Amino acid sequence: MSEIRKHYFLPEYCIIAEERAKRPSDFTVAAEASEKNGSENCVFCGGNEEKTPLATAVYKNGEIFVDTGEKRVRNWDFRCFPNLYPALSPAPSSPEPGGKYLEAFPGFGFHEVIVESPIHGKKLYDFSDNEISGLIKVYRDRVCNYAAHKKISCVSLFKNSGKAAGASQNHPHSQLIALPLLPQVLKKEVVAIKEAGKCPYCALLEEEKVSSRIILENSDFIAFAPYYSTVPFEVWILPKKHLSFLGEFGPELLSTLGEILRDILRRYAKILGDLPYNYMFYQIFETPEYHLNLRLVPRLSTAAGFELNTGVYINSVSPEKAASYLRGDL
Amino acid sequence: MSEIRKHYFLPEYCIIAEERAKRPSDFTVAAEASEKNGSENCVFCGGNEEKTPLATAVYKNGEIFVDTGEKRVRNWDFRCFPNLYPALSPAPSSPEPGGKYLEAFPGFGFHEVIVESPIHGKKLYDFSDNEISGLIKVYRDRVCNYAAHKKISCVSLFKNSGKAAGASQNHPHSQLIALPLLPQVLKKEVVAIKEAGKCPYCALLEEEKVSSRIILENSDFIAFAPYYSTVPFEVWILPKKHLSFLGEFGPELLSTLGEILRDILRRYAKILGDLPYNYMFYQIFETPEYHLNLRLVPRLSTAAGFELNTGVYINSVSPEKAASYLRGDL
Repeated sequence: MSEIRKHYFLPEYCIIAEERAKRPSDFTVAAEASEKNGSENCVFCGGNEEKTPLATAVYKNGEIFVDTGEKRVRNWDFRCFPNLYPALSPAPSSPEPGGKYLEAFPGFGFHEVIVESPIHGKKLYDFSDNEISGLIKVYRDRVCNYAAHKKISCVSLFKNSGKAAGASQNHPHSQLIALPLLPQVLKKEVVAIKEAGKCPYCALLEEEKVSSRIILENSDFIAFAPYYSTVPFEVWILPKKHLSFLGEFGPELLSTLGEILRDILRRYAKILGDLPYNYMFYQIFETPEYHLNLRLVPRLSTAAGFELNTGVYINSVSPEKAASYLRGDL
Repeated sequence: MSEIRKHYFLPEYCIIAEERAKRPSDFTVAAEASEKNGSENCVFCGGNEEKTPLATAVYKNGEIFVDTGEKRVRNWDFRCFPNLYPALSPAPSSPEPGGKYLEAFPGFGFHEVIVESPIHGKKLYDFSDNEISGLIKVYRDRVCNYAAHKKISCVSLFKNSGKAAGASQNHPHSQLIALPLLPQVLKKEVVAIKEAGKCPYCALLEEEKVSSRIILENSDFIAFAPYYSTVPFEVWILPKKHLSFLGEFGPELLSTLGEILRDILRRYAKILGDLPYNYMFYQIFETPEYHLNLRLVPRLSTAAGFELNTGVYINSVSPEKAASYLRGDL
């Protein structure tokens, strides 16, 4: 069972999750063997539904089903189920009492896998209009499902693609972790936004829209390389309207978000090949002052001792140059 | 020329350093080719002194020399010189004016390489007593050298070992980056420590010394797996006395720190093999309230979308278990 531990004296948390119960010898081969590349025996593939926990939501021809012990839904479009090695779980045990400066909480929460396609080698940038807006709808539905839980304060929704981005399966999938607390990265932003008394994202959107860092926009979103870019080719996607979380998105926004996301992924593939990347939704359903944003982080460089020591990232590609490559100027 | 950019609305910074002027195509092969493994043509090896910038400090038989244009010092023990691709430099140009929410500063600072041995394959855990205390002395001297500069607010001293830890050269070396500002990670700690009104490190040291997370101690230092461990086998080394930076270390502490550091690296090698790792000195020379600490971070797991999104690390090995492996109990 996992537990959530607090930093000795900072409002920051980590999760100790020993479910996988690794021994030191497991780590010495981890670098080579961690990614299962083949599609043989891939537990996420269509047809292998028995090999995962029971699905909590299966999307098929516009309808939503759930698995039962007797029957697993087949021929689906998108499939959501609990992670077999969850970071947090609905029924955690209580941690040992700590001491002064030693604080821990039960590892309560939900950890779900969202399989984006039954086809192993499918790429998000090849999705049809219906497929990509369908996926964003799944994202919205699953976030809302967990946001409705009275003990959940934050839902983290993210995609790890490629080994260097932390993916242990290369079948296309995203993940969602629902947390009982507002984590440090978002809390810090909320404090600054409330202090500012107005939304900095609304303001910076206007700045970036007319800057050399803009990549593209559509009716509802803009995509740009942020002025404060921590890694080469980082991209932020912001809704033009002030919206705090995916639950506020209607059908039109599901489509236009899907389109701009797919467009950025196509541009990445064109200039950077089959790159490892993460994307994450920054959103808070309890804080209307927050402005949802989606960040794409290519994993082409390694955070090293300096970044760990200071939090300051050294980025060898300016956002202005990254944007001009991604616009197709260079 | 590099520049230091501020986050739109948070007190956080990144460094845009385009010195290496990478093109997108450079990144597609970066993953495979980034580490120069062979010792042929290694610019850090003894005998290849011409292949680096002029050394700023060369340690040889207990004396300190500098290179001149005509003459490079040979047969050295430790050798320090400016990084050929510096993140910060002594004479930066001024950034373009930004705008609202767009703030940048000249990329002023110093970036130095500290070569730990003339021998390519030498490991820190095989250093003799004299060699390891000699290295800590070099660390102290170089930190003091830059701390004395009136425009420098913080000196980050760190080691990247192995490709997964961000090392681009596998000849044993450390690095130092002297910054004109106090970076976010340390600033956050200082704020919390000043608010607490007493040193939390002094207090947590007493807690951890008698906990199941203690690994070893000597007359001046303790080494333990911290209660808040973000990655498997993370280790913190703390001086028992309240000291804020390496400049306060006398000869005895240089020896006892070297010994305990070497001991931890030996234990790592014994149970985890030739692991990639970083270590970093957390120290602030301007803030006597701060308590210096040295953190060792094995790079056996990958920070993925969840960690980027929340700042919350998922750690699959509890510090209690890590400590028991490192003590040799398991």
